[in-house]
Amino acid sequence: MLKATVTGRIWSTKKVSEMPAGSILEVIVDESNSRLLAFDPLGCGEGEKVIVATGSVAAGWFPGKAPPIDALIIGSIDESATKK
Amino acid sequence: MLKATVTGRIWSTKKVSEMPAGSILEVIVDESNSRLLAFDPLGCGEGEKVIVATGSVAAGWFPGKAPPIDALIIGSIDESATKK
Amino acid sequence: MLKATVTGRIWSTKKVSEMPAGSILEVIVDESNSRLLAFDPLGCGEGEKVIVATGSVAAGWFPGKAPPIDALIIGSIDESATKK
Amino acid sequence: MLKATVTGRIWSTKKVSEMPAGSILEVIVDESNSRLLAFDPLGCGEGEKVIVATGSVAAGWFPGKAPPIDALIIGSIDESATKK
Amino acid sequence: MLKATVTGRIWSTKKVSEMPAGSILEVIVDESNSRLLAFDPLGCGEGEKVIVATGSVAAGWFPGKAPPIDALIIGSIDESATKK
Repeated sequence: MLKATVTGRIWSTKKVSEMPAGSILEVIVDESNSRLLAFDPLGCGEGEKVIVATGSVAAGWFPGKAPPIDALIIGSIDESATKK
Repeated sequence: MLKATVTGRIWSTKKVSEMPAGSILEVIVDESNSRLLAFDPLGCGEGEKVIVATGSVAAGWFPGKAPPIDALIIGSIDESATKK
Repeated sequence: MLKATVTGRIWSTKKVSEMPAGSILEVIVDESNSRLLAFDPLGCGEGEKVIVATGSVAAGWFPGKAPPIDALIIGSIDESATKK
Repeated sequence: MLKATVTGRIWSTKKVSEMPAGSILEVIVDESNSRLLAFDPLGCGEGEKVIVATGSVAAGWFPGKAPPIDALIIGSIDESATKK
Repeated sequence: MLKATVTGRIWSTKKVSEMPAGSILEVIVDESNSRLLAFDPLGCGEGEKVIVATGSVAAGWFPGKAPPIDALIIGSIDESATKK
């Protein structure tokens, strides 16, 4: 998974019908310049540190037929013991 | 998913028969130099900002047997609250 | 998918028995320095511009049990409207 | 798989209910600057050299329905014959 | 797939029980600085040029339940027509 920080939200009206209802957030991966869009089932806000799972495991999280979603926020980070 | 901008379209006559009918667009991932080719079910045009899902979830979106497609435009972006 | 140019062919005698019969080509991804080896079902030649699908969707293209192949040339590019 | 070194641990209280009980460690991939978060079923400690499997194979390791976990520590490294 | 050169071997005693018996080799991807650990069913040696398949197709190669292995040496390279 990736440790990332929420930087904003994306809106899309013209989309495939299989896109699940809910928020698509933009995140930046910590200590890198990579930006991703991830589905957020947790109601995270800008600046929040999150854990992002990517690939088919993100789609597999949804009940029923897997939607075309390849990144999912699976948690918000409380605290980190990582050495800087 | 990746936030990207459509830069063009690709045509292929010599191809595997399992390639689905429709457009393959070239996109550049925003704030990077990465270029991808993605299947477009939405009729997007050059310069349009789009959301691209990659990997097996792209193939899984198609009805019936999954085609060898690893990138799919799942939405066009209306507006972004991302801080620049 | 990736837009790439064929640069050569690989031969392997010592290999797993599940490797499908056919050509493994070396390609370089356009506008990058990434090199990949991809299975070629189309008979592409050196210098040819191709579309490469990667990951499990490449293996899923083969009939029967999926072989350990993670990159597949799915088409040869006719023409591109991409802005340079 | 990736050869990595454990650098810390992540705690998350606000999370999806499908996140399995256990430790999420932060690792840095050796001879790179890439950082990942990986599920640790082995009780690894800071500074330990580990083998990390990524992608859907990590989720597939768990018994029952695959959780949204895309990185798994599958072993701790005893010794390496790698030339430096 | 990736064209890589074997640089060493990894030993792991503390590991998940699902790790298959056999060698885990360290390889460096040719014309890059990326290092990977890959399962070797072919008995390759240091300095040998190999073809590495990555992702879930590596796990799918094993008989029975797929182990948490995301990189597999599928062949040793005889000869290459690649232009340098």
